[in-house]
Amino acid sequence: MLTLYCFGPGANSLKPLLTLYEKGLEFTRKQLNPAVFEHHEDWFKKINPNGQVPALDHDGKIITESTVICEYLEDAFPEMPIKLRPKDPYLIAQMRIWTKWVDEYFCWCVSTIGWERAIGPMARSIPEDEFEEKMKRIPIPEQVTKWRNARKGFPKDVLEEEMRKVRLSIARLEARLSESKWLGGPDYTLADVCNFAIANGMERGFADVVNDKDTPHLTDWIRRVNDRPGCKEMFAKIKRESLAPRPKTATA
Amino acid sequence: MLTLYCFGPGANSLKPLLTLYEKGLEFTRKQLNPAVFEHHEDWFKKINPNGQVPALDHDGKIITESTVICEYLEDAFPEMPIKLRPKDPYLIAQMRIWTKWVDEYFCWCVSTIGWERAIGPMARSIPEDEFEEKMKRIPIPEQVTKWRNARKGFPKDVLEEEMRKVRLSIARLEARLSESKWLGGPDYTLADVCNFAIANGMERGFADVVNDKDTPHLTDWIRRVNDRPGCKEMFAKIKRESLAPRPKTATA
Repeated sequence: MLTLYCFGPGANSLKPLLTLYEKGLEFTRKQLNPAVFEHHEDWFKKINPNGQVPALDHDGKIITESTVICEYLEDAFPEMPIKLRPKDPYLIAQMRIWTKWVDEYFCWCVSTIGWERAIGPMARSIPEDEFEEKMKRIPIPEQVTKWRNARKGFPKDVLEEEMRKVRLSIARLEARLSESKWLGGPDYTLADVCNFAIANGMERGFADVVNDKDTPHLTDWIRRVNDRPGCKEMFAKIKRESLAPRPKTATA
Repeated sequence: MLTLYCFGPGANSLKPLLTLYEKGLEFTRKQLNPAVFEHHEDWFKKINPNGQVPALDHDGKIITESTVICEYLEDAFPEMPIKLRPKDPYLIAQMRIWTKWVDEYFCWCVSTIGWERAIGPMARSIPEDEFEEKMKRIPIPEQVTKWRNARKGFPKDVLEEEMRKVRLSIARLEARLSESKWLGGPDYTLADVCNFAIANGMERGFADVVNDKDTPHLTDWIRRVNDRPGCKEMFAKIKRESLAPRPKTATA
């Protein structure tokens, strides 16, 4: 039996969610509420001591790290008709260069801006005593720092540097998609799933950077992924939580 | 035919080097000299536009990113007797959590301290005109920033934060190796290869953190990897370049 502990279909939680829907695997979804720090509660830290979603429970074995979970689903269910990993070793490597890049570079700069815009106002609305209590329950020190930065507002120079990286990332995606139908090569793979997890919605939240005029291949790719049956089913069945970046109230 | 473009057997270059020696694959080694910025020369940027080693040429196809290269060698040569990736999907996932962690966390903090100690003095010995010329040839902006930081000396608070992460990383490795023979589980895998690439030598360069008294399981693991025939052959055949961290002249 497969149980996925996750937030709604955005960012890292989207990766295994979309992979499960694409492959047509039956699973139970346990959706946690980040607004009440549910992922830092003791019951969940018994499942993932890092207090991070997504986490997959497969017959009692726990697999963590969103990209690792996606490759796991390929390894554990080779009989499923839809494959999200190529067979050719060279193309697998190209896929992995792109899943690695989103995890090490692209996701972080987009995340900081998202935290500044959406998590910041939420974090500031929590009374100080309660906020400090919540911080004590976070296992990863860097996550505590991120929450504190969001609450007081990220420094201006940090936000500028992150926006530089966002622009560079978008230029890289646009360049690649202008020469290749999918990120990893001729086929739709986990490279697309994992980068879509971050890029989807940027045509609204980052409309000055991601738009049909400046990045036509990227917006076309975002539409093509959204049009896939598995993706449609996912968005039809699962709502995003209220913490999703809300560009209308953006402060950065 | 396999050709590996690399530095000596340390850090990211060690990962595919050790994988090739472990698997007994024949390959040509093209060792670049970082002291003269050979990896930023035009001939090499035609092979890897990022100007980074290692890069593998397999019959004319280029694979980049050290960890991706290691998994590629598993995918491309499944007939080799020594496997560095388990067969069980759960154990593959555990291996990948560790290769991901070294790439996203452990390698960076150790690298900053290494750059401060070994690259800093070297960078400062280059005349300013020549240094600025070299900087213009580096394709990745973050690498330029790193070279400039090394030349002027990393800020004290950055070095302190990186040392905090080094200590946390070492504690994590020691805890894991006190409960498991190898990092990924019962077998020696790419999890060990990729973490060894960073941890090997820390019992000299970071002797106050990595030593038989405080981290007996970690130092034992370092010795066990060094004792493997493939590792012995690698170190016997290839010298590290003169840029390797030299603790005796450490400034941090």
